[in-house]
Amino acid sequence: MAGIMYGIGVGPGDPELMTIKAVKRIRDLKVIAIPHKDKEICTSYQIARQAVPEIEEKECLCLHMPMTKDQEALRKSHEEAADAVIARLQLGEDVGFLTLGDVSIYSTFAYLAERVVKEGYEIRLVSGIPSFCAAAARLDLSLVTGSEELHIIPASYQISDALKLPGVKVLMKAGRQIEAVKEEIKKNGLSAVMVENCGMEEERIYKSLDEIPETAGYYSLLIVR
Amino acid sequence: MAGIMYGIGVGPGDPELMTIKAVKRIRDLKVIAIPHKDKEICTSYQIARQAVPEIEEKECLCLHMPMTKDQEALRKSHEEAADAVIARLQLGEDVGFLTLGDVSIYSTFAYLAERVVKEGYEIRLVSGIPSFCAAAARLDLSLVTGSEELHIIPASYQISDALKLPGVKVLMKAGRQIEAVKEEIKKNGLSAVMVENCGMEEERIYKSLDEIPETAGYYSLLIVR
Repeated sequence: MAGIMYGIGVGPGDPELMTIKAVKRIRDLKVIAIPHKDKEICTSYQIARQAVPEIEEKECLCLHMPMTKDQEALRKSHEEAADAVIARLQLGEDVGFLTLGDVSIYSTFAYLAERVVKEGYEIRLVSGIPSFCAAAARLDLSLVTGSEELHIIPASYQISDALKLPGVKVLMKAGRQIEAVKEEIKKNGLSAVMVENCGMEEERIYKSLDEIPETAGYYSLLIVR
Repeated sequence: MAGIMYGIGVGPGDPELMTIKAVKRIRDLKVIAIPHKDKEICTSYQIARQAVPEIEEKECLCLHMPMTKDQEALRKSHEEAADAVIARLQLGEDVGFLTLGDVSIYSTFAYLAERVVKEGYEIRLVSGIPSFCAAAARLDLSLVTGSEELHIIPASYQISDALKLPGVKVLMKAGRQIEAVKEEIKKNGLSAVMVENCGMEEERIYKSLDEIPETAGYYSLLIVR
């Protein structure tokens, strides 16, 4: 019988934000796949290791999945990674792919899953805490109540239309464009708070737009209202 | 020293979707508050009990917080509930308020927190898996990838503008208006899947708009694209 590929969300950084289900699943699996060449510097692996030390005894399938906007390079790396997983599924081995935050929200797991399913194999998703929930908790803030809408916007693309939406806007991965993002928020007369590297060692919190610096890391998340 | 009020997200239904942090926090607390008169029929309490059986030995502060759109009745019940919590904080006792899904997204905790903070007490939030992440996982679906936007819409209010947004739309608590919601989705030429009572015993899954019935429970969530 062919193996199953599990997508496992490990949450945004704090290992205690992993779910009981994710911990159990990792314990039960023999093969763990990560979107990185080196587990020692792979964020999702390092989070999981703190909650499930036994992960060190498992085989680690290190998939090279560089972050790039070059569509052809992306397609090729997703294809090669999926093929490496499929080779194990064919042997009847289950594979658990670790992903930062939740597995259904902006995870590279989606690309692997598409190909793995197309080739006739089964997948299962194990939810993780999304970064925007953890960032709100870190700030002791509610994101939305009652009839408010919540909009999750990948801020490395354009944001000017999104900022005009009613309700609360979460700008994900805003780090690289932070200057332009701040400018646009100001122009719309909105306020913002920011968490950089939520739940990680290098976490930093900014409680107003004015506090937000001119440079910020990739894992920077703004809550705008 | 005054106590702290913890808002604890227990996830949408499956007790294994509780985080390690939520389990530990509940174990450490002596007083657990719930938004219900009776813990035996309080959903968040029943979820937590399955993951943390020791909860039964703790004092349960049963707060009467009925769901209503009557603003005056809501304000009064929130105020009374907050006052009951504050009475314990004044005694130096920590109180953990259980909430379905994540504590920062459409949780009654927000109303309690507002009053508790105003009265000078500390709060802390413990994240939980939001229902839309769990619903996507239950369907083995990714919600969003790359540059796609994700819009979380409380469907018990109006949805026609929201359905015109780019990206993926999650309609929360669509049950009571399900006929009108289906009609509106069809009118916009969109497709939808639905999970009713995600992770609970009475869970039901509908993989297309046509499968979705004419009546549905309160905890019904649609993923529209």
